[in-house]
Amino acid sequence: MNSIIDPNVASTQYPDLESRTKPSDQQDLRLWLRMLSCCNLIESEVRSRLRIQFGTTLPRFDMMAQLLRVPQGMKMSELSRRMMVTNGNITGITDQLEKEGLVERVKVATDRRSSLIRLTPSGRRTFAKMAEAHEQWIHGLFSGLPEAQRLSLFDTLGELKVTIRPQLGTRN
Amino acid sequence: MNSIIDPNVASTQYPDLESRTKPSDQQDLRLWLRMLSCCNLIESEVRSRLRIQFGTTLPRFDMMAQLLRVPQGMKMSELSRRMMVTNGNITGITDQLEKEGLVERVKVATDRRSSLIRLTPSGRRTFAKMAEAHEQWIHGLFSGLPEAQRLSLFDTLGELKVTIRPQLGTRN
Repeated sequence: MNSIIDPNVASTQYPDLESRTKPSDQQDLRLWLRMLSCCNLIESEVRSRLRIQFGTTLPRFDMMAQLLRVPQGMKMSELSRRMMVTNGNITGITDQLEKEGLVERVKVATDRRSSLIRLTPSGRRTFAKMAEAHEQWIHGLFSGLPEAQRLSLFDTLGELKVTIRPQLGTRN
Repeated sequence: MNSIIDPNVASTQYPDLESRTKPSDQQDLRLWLRMLSCCNLIESEVRSRLRIQFGTTLPRFDMMAQLLRVPQGMKMSELSRRMMVTNGNITGITDQLEKEGLVERVKVATDRRSSLIRLTPSGRRTFAKMAEAHEQWIHGLFSGLPEAQRLSLFDTLGELKVTIRPQLGTRN
């Protein structure tokens, strides 16, 4: 069922997630959309700064952060589970990082079919610079909030996490 | 530089985002990773329940939520900006929803090349059921937190949002 409609009556504003709620919506839904909206604002700002200042992406940054914790290297499957993205993506990111000399694939003695991925010395140096900048960005983005509120936010989110976990499906 | 390494020395645990931080990491970074981790837990639970209970995806749910607010319909470009995903994805989701009779494309009088997308009556009914379930899920997931803490979380996140905005690049 199609008809002719004047597009100018459509809203020209592009509000964020939170503004989607109506006053009648439940308070918890408003809380969730506000939390999601804060996370999205910060995450997209981090993505944007990683791209502009380091020519890299958040998945690449995340993978290097994971690899830093395990100097001997990790299997693709383990990396995938830690990053909660698909194996396919991990392979693509690994290929890119390997090409730039930031990670290397290492053969496994006990399993000829799989290999470990680990940071190269150059990868560790590159990641150290990005991680330091990232920490400063986060510090700056939260700095408008008084310290007492940041601490209370940290505690409340910790409690939220603990009370949410038992409600999650087995996939989480 | 490849070498033979025993994979068994690699960690077999798959910690979440927050556990990536070391004690020496800045408190703000820990706060951010905890917040992101809460968002990811809730969002992936919502994705999982949408899939299991309604056979749908979060982007489809989000698009229908956007369309519900503008009964006369929206252009693809406007939908895309509101959802912060690419036009390509919007087109794919629209095609799927149109095939199931949940949305329809409507011709525009003033612009022959573009059309508006809007919910069909069936789409509105289907979305109403999903939205009600979604609201209950969110209510349940936050219910472990005492009301005073939920209110304080809501206020603090509101303040965070206000203080973050001026720091964002123009893309946000």
